[in-house]
Amino acid sequence: MASTTSTEPVIKSSSAPIPLAALDYSKIDVILRFLLFGASVSAVASIVSSDQTELVLFQGVPVPNPAKFKYSPALIYFVSAFSVSGLYGLFTTIVSISVIQKPRYKLKFLLHLLLCDALILGIVASATGTAGGIAYLGLKGNSHVGWIKVCNVYDKFCRHLAGSIATALFGSIVDVLLIWLSAYTLHTHVPK
Amino acid sequence: MASTTSTEPVIKSSSAPIPLAALDYSKIDVILRFLLFGASVSAVASIVSSDQTELVLFQGVPVPNPAKFKYSPALIYFVSAFSVSGLYGLFTTIVSISVIQKPRYKLKFLLHLLLCDALILGIVASATGTAGGIAYLGLKGNSHVGWIKVCNVYDKFCRHLAGSIATALFGSIVDVLLIWLSAYTLHTHVPK
Repeated sequence: MASTTSTEPVIKSSSAPIPLAALDYSKIDVILRFLLFGASVSAVASIVSSDQTELVLFQGVPVPNPAKFKYSPALIYFVSAFSVSGLYGLFTTIVSISVIQKPRYKLKFLLHLLLCDALILGIVASATGTAGGIAYLGLKGNSHVGWIKVCNVYDKFCRHLAGSIATALFGSIVDVLLIWLSAYTLHTHVPK
Repeated sequence: MASTTSTEPVIKSSSAPIPLAALDYSKIDVILRFLLFGASVSAVASIVSSDQTELVLFQGVPVPNPAKFKYSPALIYFVSAFSVSGLYGLFTTIVSISVIQKPRYKLKFLLHLLLCDALILGIVASATGTAGGIAYLGLKGNSHVGWIKVCNVYDKFCRHLAGSIATALFGSIVDVLLIWLSAYTLHTHVPK
């Protein structure tokens, strides 16, 4: 016991705890921002590559009928929103890395990133909701208004759409975590 | 000019700027939270009262066909999300008022409210997106998949839906502003 307590002051003096903890948050921030970038690119790539053409009966004659994301304004909004989010993720990853090297401006950047994160969360969450609503309609249809389901015909298109929405949901959760992390880091710097 | 500069120190000494500014932020916080509550209640009330029954031709015979929000899973999600957001708005308005009276716990509460605000923003933005996507489909239809537009028949239903989505969008923006305000208030308490 005596030898353990005698070494403690040496350990404490060699490593300052507060800057180390702050550095760890910065690294998690960079990882989360890169995850947001990755999730956004995956979501966009999955939906852009979802085109599928099937033979559909039109007045008794089978005609090739393509399904493309461009045919739905909701999916165009989804692709636009996640393109913005992907670019934002990439840009802020670089900013976040550069802030690690210059910790003097850290808290100011953290505030601005938090403000932008909140905006991006609004955009990606609404885009995920929009695409999710349309995808559910494609899967189940709505008999009350006569909107038929289409996923029994366009299976590949719907699989891509489902994968894209799952990745988008992950991206939205990452964005919430980013806001939480920034807020917590700001709070740790407030004097008690 | 000389008389103006001579009065300035007197004004500065009579009013302490930092606590006054903090108090103002708290008041804006209460107002914004009450606005979130109001917007959520309006959005839910507008959509719940949107039921409309019209005569629709079914195999050549006009039959009464009702339009209700319950028929669409997207609108059920919308109502659920904004019910949660309304309750959250009411609860946090009370919390925010009580924090004004006990400024000692202000920053701790502010952090927790910011974390919850980010979650609520994700929920309300996705719900607004979902309902917006379905409403746009009802307004314009989608000829590629044979989903007909319905707003030419159910005009009252669609008017209520549009009003509800506009209010929901306002509520989402208020939620973004709440996050911005909390983050900014936290940042002002960080020593420079």
